Amino acid sequence: MNRKADTATVSVGLGARAYDILIGPGLIVRAGAEIAARLPGTRAAVITDDNVASAHLPVLQESLGAVGIDSVTVQVRPGERSKSFETLQEAVDAILAARLERRDTIIALGGGVVGDLAGFVASIVRRGMNFVQVPTSLLAQVDSSVGGKTGINTAHGKNLVGAFHQPRLVLADTAALDTLPEREFRAGYAEVVKYGLINQPDFFAWLEQNWREVFSGGSARIEAIARSCRAKAETVERDERETGERALLNLGHTFGHALEAATGYDGARLVHGEGVAIGMALAHRFSARMNLASPDDAARVESHLRAVGLPTSPKDIAGDLPGADALLSYIAQDKKVSRGALTFILTRGIGQAFIAKDVPASEVHAFLKEFERP
Amino acid sequence: MNRKADTATVSVGLGARAYDILIGPGLIVRAGAEIAARLPGTRAAVITDDNVASAHLPVLQESLGAVGIDSVTVQVRPGERSKSFETLQEAVDAILAARLERRDTIIALGGGVVGDLAGFVASIVRRGMNFVQVPTSLLAQVDSSVGGKTGINTAHGKNLVGAFHQPRLVLADTAALDTLPEREFRAGYAEVVKYGLINQPDFFAWLEQNWREVFSGGSARIEAIARSCRAKAETVERDERETGERALLNLGHTFGHALEAATGYDGARLVHGEGVAIGMALAHRFSARMNLASPDDAARVESHLRAVGLPTSPKDIAGDLPGADALLSYIAQDKKVSRGALTFILTRGIGQAFIAKDVPASEVHAFLKEFERP
Repeated sequence: MNRKADTATVSVGLGARAYDILIGPGLIVRAGAEIAARLPGTRAAVITDDNVASAHLPVLQESLGAVGIDSVTVQVRPGERSKSFETLQEAVDAILAARLERRDTIIALGGGVVGDLAGFVASIVRRGMNFVQVPTSLLAQVDSSVGGKTGINTAHGKNLVGAFHQPRLVLADTAALDTLPEREFRAGYAEVVKYGLINQPDFFAWLEQNWREVFSGGSARIEAIARSCRAKAETVERDERETGERALLNLGHTFGHALEAATGYDGARLVHGEGVAIGMALAHRFSARMNLASPDDAARVESHLRAVGLPTSPKDIAGDLPGADALLSYIAQDKKVSRGALTFILTRGIGQAFIAKDVPASEVHAFLKEFERP
Repeated sequence: MNRKADTATVSVGLGARAYDILIGPGLIVRAGAEIAARLPGTRAAVITDDNVASAHLPVLQESLGAVGIDSVTVQVRPGERSKSFETLQEAVDAILAARLERRDTIIALGGGVVGDLAGFVASIVRRGMNFVQVPTSLLAQVDSSVGGKTGINTAHGKNLVGAFHQPRLVLADTAALDTLPEREFRAGYAEVVKYGLINQPDFFAWLEQNWREVFSGGSARIEAIARSCRAKAETVERDERETGERALLNLGHTFGHALEAATGYDGARLVHGEGVAIGMALAHRFSARMNLASPDDAARVESHLRAVGLPTSPKDIAGDLPGADALLSYIAQDKKVSRGALTFILTRGIGQAFIAKDVPASEVHAFLKEFERP
């Protein structure tokens, strides 16, 4: 197999479930060869959405066909609503109708929604098929395609039903990101920043210097994605099933999820990465307020997020927002609740995030009050 | 915790997922204490069916309440049809509506259908909750509650959607079997015989001597169930995800599943264990015919199955059956097909089963022809 010089490889060491993440331009073109080399004789089902299909499906199909991989395609509607029991069942039925076997492969071609859905399909059909991720959004390349979390939403909340199912291979085609709307790229970048904030202050400082090159593409983009994947992989290696430190990856997500819920998951008002950006800014401000970290660090985080054009406060969200009471109730509903106590990811400074259990709800409430509009 | 002298314990050694199977009378009464000792602070959802609920649910609920375990109950309709996407979604919604968390526990109270469904629910809600099996049928006690296979059926076949999810504890209350219809107990006994036939000729000989005591209850019943669980546990320990020898547990199942499909899963005509009994008899006869084993062994197997009142031939099934062509097509549809070749569990004699790959379809077809009715 030709491994181009501009491809970075991150190996995720999970014993029998170890796999590689390849990062670089042109990986969709090379997908067939990369898959055939690792899973000889496999057949495949490509799960994708209508938007991604028009941009990338023909290239992927040609790549699979060129190495003799038979494939069927399951196309779902774009957007979070496809993470449903209904779409899950449709996809499962299509895979079974195609008579794919345990050793065959589900390929997710798309962003986080497609990856989460397809991974869950792969985990439950015949109690587990091979799974390959071909993430086409920055968010999916640095976050959802790494680590094996899969799932769908229910009326009770997001990602409440799912499985841990590691991919056999992740192909992060950095050229595919050129077709993303800038707002979506920027939202994904929030998750890149997150890895710096969790435990890599040098990476955060590097991003402060190099973010323009990350946005414009080229080797800085590959490096940022590779460092993000490596950071996530290291965390997942130490705590695959989130019994401990993997929860650090939720930095910014508790506030962020509450804001997403409060805006009715209306992507026109707030997309996930933007919620995370606001959530990270709030986590740093709240940590400073609790005298855990310096306010200077919170200011530095806010300043970088603003520089790239990300929101940092609930006040940046257009339209009405519910008050502190409602936000707190969304937070309590979030699945990262343990025995009713509020658990947050807080920080002692940039690159020093930690899991704070038993955070007093009254403090969080008073803090959120400050962002209420008159 | 009081461990009564007449309780047998089988430990399933799966590293971090190790668990105990307790076998003896009165375990439903003790369930609360046994669960609380292993999962302190847990809340619970009991998944059961209407029939089992009327026999055992009040006792289980009282037992949970006595040790302070809060529980909700999800009651499904009895029978294979509850292994559906629809019932799965209903059960998942009920668990989420009750706000159960990751560390809470799904308890399966019932036979194989309830266990398979509840285990799958436990594996996917919040990407995995605790799971406790309280099997109330002999089949579930010796087979489906051990080993972590969970799942539902689809229009394409049985158990095609599911997960591997190990329980934290199995409580096999042998007194609960006293309430079973004799036909159901007998069908479950076929799976007990299976363990002898796979690799324990001494156990098969012991069953030939002691089967009456197993049927009537008491210590022989506990011993038979414990030896069966131990046999299954050892196989699962060596091959949790059925990449190899775990397939031996399918002895009798390839023919058996085809017969179940051919009778439209009509339990009035053929229940699973009866299909397995016929399947085991056929596997031994077919092995003899292929000159792999002595015809005397096949005769001995048939003789024991007949002695307990189990069927041993397709001709024992009431009503019309499709011919060899149709049966072969059901066999080819079975999920234990690898790359289109027919894989069977065959035998070199009692206690000497092995995985036979590339069994010629023509030989199977000719063999099945003999059982066609004129």
